[in-house]
Amino acid sequence: MGKNKDKEFVKDITKMEDDFPQWYTDVIKKTDLVDYSPVKGFMVIKPYGYALWENIQSFLDRRFKETGHENCYFPLLIPESLLNKEKEHVEGFAPEVAWVTHGGDEELAERLCVRPTSETIFCSMYSKWLTSYRELPYLYNQWCSVVRWEKTTRPFLRTSEFLWQEGHTLHETAEEAQTETLKMLSVYKEMAEDLLAIPMIVGKKSEKEKFAGAESTYTIEALMHDGKALQSGTSHNFAQHFSKAFDINFQGREGDLEYPHQTSWGVSTRLIGGMIMVHGDNRGLVLPPRLAPIQVVIVPIAQKKEGVLERAEELRKELASKGIRVKLDDNVNYSPGWKFNEYEMKGVPIRIEIGPRDIENGVAMVARRDNLEKGPVELDGIGDGMVKLLDQIHDDMLNRARESRDAKTFTFETYDEFKQKMEETPGFAKTMWCGDRACEESVKTETGVSIRCIPFEQENLGDVCPFCGKPAKHMVYMAKAY
Amino acid sequence: MGKNKDKEFVKDITKMEDDFPQWYTDVIKKTDLVDYSPVKGFMVIKPYGYALWENIQSFLDRRFKETGHENCYFPLLIPESLLNKEKEHVEGFAPEVAWVTHGGDEELAERLCVRPTSETIFCSMYSKWLTSYRELPYLYNQWCSVVRWEKTTRPFLRTSEFLWQEGHTLHETAEEAQTETLKMLSVYKEMAEDLLAIPMIVGKKSEKEKFAGAESTYTIEALMHDGKALQSGTSHNFAQHFSKAFDINFQGREGDLEYPHQTSWGVSTRLIGGMIMVHGDNRGLVLPPRLAPIQVVIVPIAQKKEGVLERAEELRKELASKGIRVKLDDNVNYSPGWKFNEYEMKGVPIRIEIGPRDIENGVAMVARRDNLEKGPVELDGIGDGMVKLLDQIHDDMLNRARESRDAKTFTFETYDEFKQKMEETPGFAKTMWCGDRACEESVKTETGVSIRCIPFEQENLGDVCPFCGKPAKHMVYMAKAY
Ligand SMILES: [Zn+2]
Ligand SMILES: [Zn+2]
Repeated sequence: MGKNKDKEFVKDITKMEDDFPQWYTDVIKKTDLVDYSPVKGFMVIKPYGYALWENIQSFLDRRFKETGHENCYFPLLIPESLLNKEKEHVEGFAPEVAWVTHGGDEELAERLCVRPTSETIFCSMYSKWLTSYRELPYLYNQWCSVVRWEKTTRPFLRTSEFLWQEGHTLHETAEEAQTETLKMLSVYKEMAEDLLAIPMIVGKKSEKEKFAGAESTYTIEALMHDGKALQSGTSHNFAQHFSKAFDINFQGREGDLEYPHQTSWGVSTRLIGGMIMVHGDNRGLVLPPRLAPIQVVIVPIAQKKEGVLERAEELRKELASKGIRVKLDDNVNYSPGWKFNEYEMKGVPIRIEIGPRDIENGVAMVARRDNLEKGPVELDGIGDGMVKLLDQIHDDMLNRARESRDAKTFTFETYDEFKQKMEETPGFAKTMWCGDRACEESVKTETGVSIRCIPFEQENLGDVCPFCGKPAKHMVYMAKAY
Repeated sequence: MGKNKDKEFVKDITKMEDDFPQWYTDVIKKTDLVDYSPVKGFMVIKPYGYALWENIQSFLDRRFKETGHENCYFPLLIPESLLNKEKEHVEGFAPEVAWVTHGGDEELAERLCVRPTSETIFCSMYSKWLTSYRELPYLYNQWCSVVRWEKTTRPFLRTSEFLWQEGHTLHETAEEAQTETLKMLSVYKEMAEDLLAIPMIVGKKSEKEKFAGAESTYTIEALMHDGKALQSGTSHNFAQHFSKAFDINFQGREGDLEYPHQTSWGVSTRLIGGMIMVHGDNRGLVLPPRLAPIQVVIVPIAQKKEGVLERAEELRKELASKGIRVKLDDNVNYSPGWKFNEYEMKGVPIRIEIGPRDIENGVAMVARRDNLEKGPVELDGIGDGMVKLLDQIHDDMLNRARESRDAKTFTFETYDEFKQKMEETPGFAKTMWCGDRACEESVKTETGVSIRCIPFEQENLGDVCPFCGKPAKHMVYMAKAY
């Protein structure tokens, strides 16, 4: 009977096998994560969606501080002349910035762009501040929103405004900058795996795919249910590109004038879109326990019967005392069946049902959202049991995501085989590559598939580039991407 | 000797008696709270300044959640047509908004304003979402930055961009909206007193001073060292002004279509400016302990001597284990004297000096920033002692601020006496007032003094308005204001 009801309640969610983009849109709308705003391409992040971002922020902010970083806040508006200082950077961003031309009734002497990213304004201040090697490193981060004018948008994945953090650091030496770049990439990977339960491929971007103005860009890449990749976080080593363009320098140990080495790194609300497309199913969201705003929901059965609500409240308190984010839903306007479906759709990791007979038997029914398993659990000691179960669910979700990704990862012999597999069973293609940008571009133009990264974990899959026949230089992961 | 050094190091801070605005500017620059950005009127909030904001955020966010509110995020850009929907609101804000006219290379069909506040965009979504009384109340808040084009700016106090939070709530009844308005005002007052150690006058704004579009505005007002008032937080009851303008309605309990009652409330980084001007002195910042990023700094003396750094580190651990934000400064590039001055200027509430002789005697020297008292404290049990001392410092700072405010609060008999006192010993003037806007405006035009609020705690000071001679209606607080 519960099953029938399920179907009834989730009938508005398109099946992902039928239409994956529509499934995604249905899920985020039905579960109240976001809504479209009156400005095209801009989204409203509703409380249930924002709570996910708060948990990501909280995890990362702690790790940033543990790794010596401090938060700050730089202005939203950047003068056009600053944006223009680094050539590759302005070429990369100018086409997609929003321009402020008037303040009140007055036309501005110089246009200001709404920050699409803040390298240029950080650099302008760093240039003013830095004097000696003794002040280095600068390890600053800011949490803010950025605007990039996009033609086609999809909530969380690509929107004209999004929330993110951007770290901007300066270092005395090239080695220190490289260490920082990789350290923050590893913090992102740790967050993805330990919080979002998403396994990541970690590596370096090709020259073509790197950030506008960077010496090198590193990335964490995840694979979605539909076989498309999502770039989930990037860390850039700028070397001295910006410090020279912005005249940031300092007196070095030997008394010489030196240019610092710079990094920047960021993740955004895009991670939420990735989490949905890695874990979600046809019933809706499946939230990894450490991310879930509600980790356990308690649904009382026959709650008007004597003692049920009291016992349910006792249970709520016990779980809360174990540090679990728990909600007791005693709303009388909705039936238990309605609630089961609602919290299933919203991806709450554990549902506990407790009714008069359960209480008599000293048990409660515990249902897992991730694998839909359900069974009785003794009330005695259930608090510690749920703490363990939440960890178990996290591990299971991470493992399933890894298995699913690996099952969608393929190798191939010929370009034709590549095209066929990418069409029929899309996913990550692991392949050797010649390292030539022209080769990479022609594959992308012909197939829409791009090099996602040159992974740190290289494998030797052969000697030639299957696309052009030239000698192979790197092993790469390729995929269609969001 | 320490004293002499002090003077040397803080020579760059102008004395507040000589030039209060310059003292303020010196303090915020020397203590690395902010810097001016390349865009006039926009400031960079540096890590030490941002850490203050993080502590305010953390206090308030917890209280908002405890009072049932949820965070969300609404778009930065608002279409001009939305801003125009509520007549008083657009008149209040249009002159000071920044306009986005281009996205990339394209001119927009409709101008977008960078949010000066978000009532209009919240209302546009609320109008779409709300259907039934069952969904009420809506209790939403967002943390973000807003832009208001200002001609003259001063860091924290008045800047063209500032950080704030804005709560936007909807309620079924007028009573509930009024309760919410006052509840959030009391949360602000609690934050000001318990975190910032600033006593607040709490009351209602006059019609002239209320928020553009509000039915009534409530405020918390603080008095600065220089006798000027700072509006430190406001809470507005909109009644149905916006819900009617934006067509927000719902099916009520009786099946009728009804308009919800609305509130909004906000505080900003302006609070930091107020905190500086209430507690600071000629040596720099004096931070209230619960707000201070570093609550206790440990300065080792003769730190190269055996055992000193080890004991200092042990002490650091003990204080940290008590939940104290403690820093051990063992930097060898600076002398203890330099450090004393540095942390004094930065307002760190407690400094502990520990050297070889102290260790031998089982004591450390403890110096309070607020009253500059210094003396030995036994190392045994010092952790608990410092926890208590931090609370004591908080209480003492709050009391001193209250005494200072009360000493600057005066009554008067005649308009001439008012003008003279406001000129010679500026502060809060407590007076009866007729309630007429024309009377209020003429006083403001002539003297620059405004009605800060009609306090909840009314006193009967007489029967006539000393400005115009008409019968008195309310007791009010008046002051020149930031
Ligand atoms: Zn090739
Ligand atoms: Zn009057």
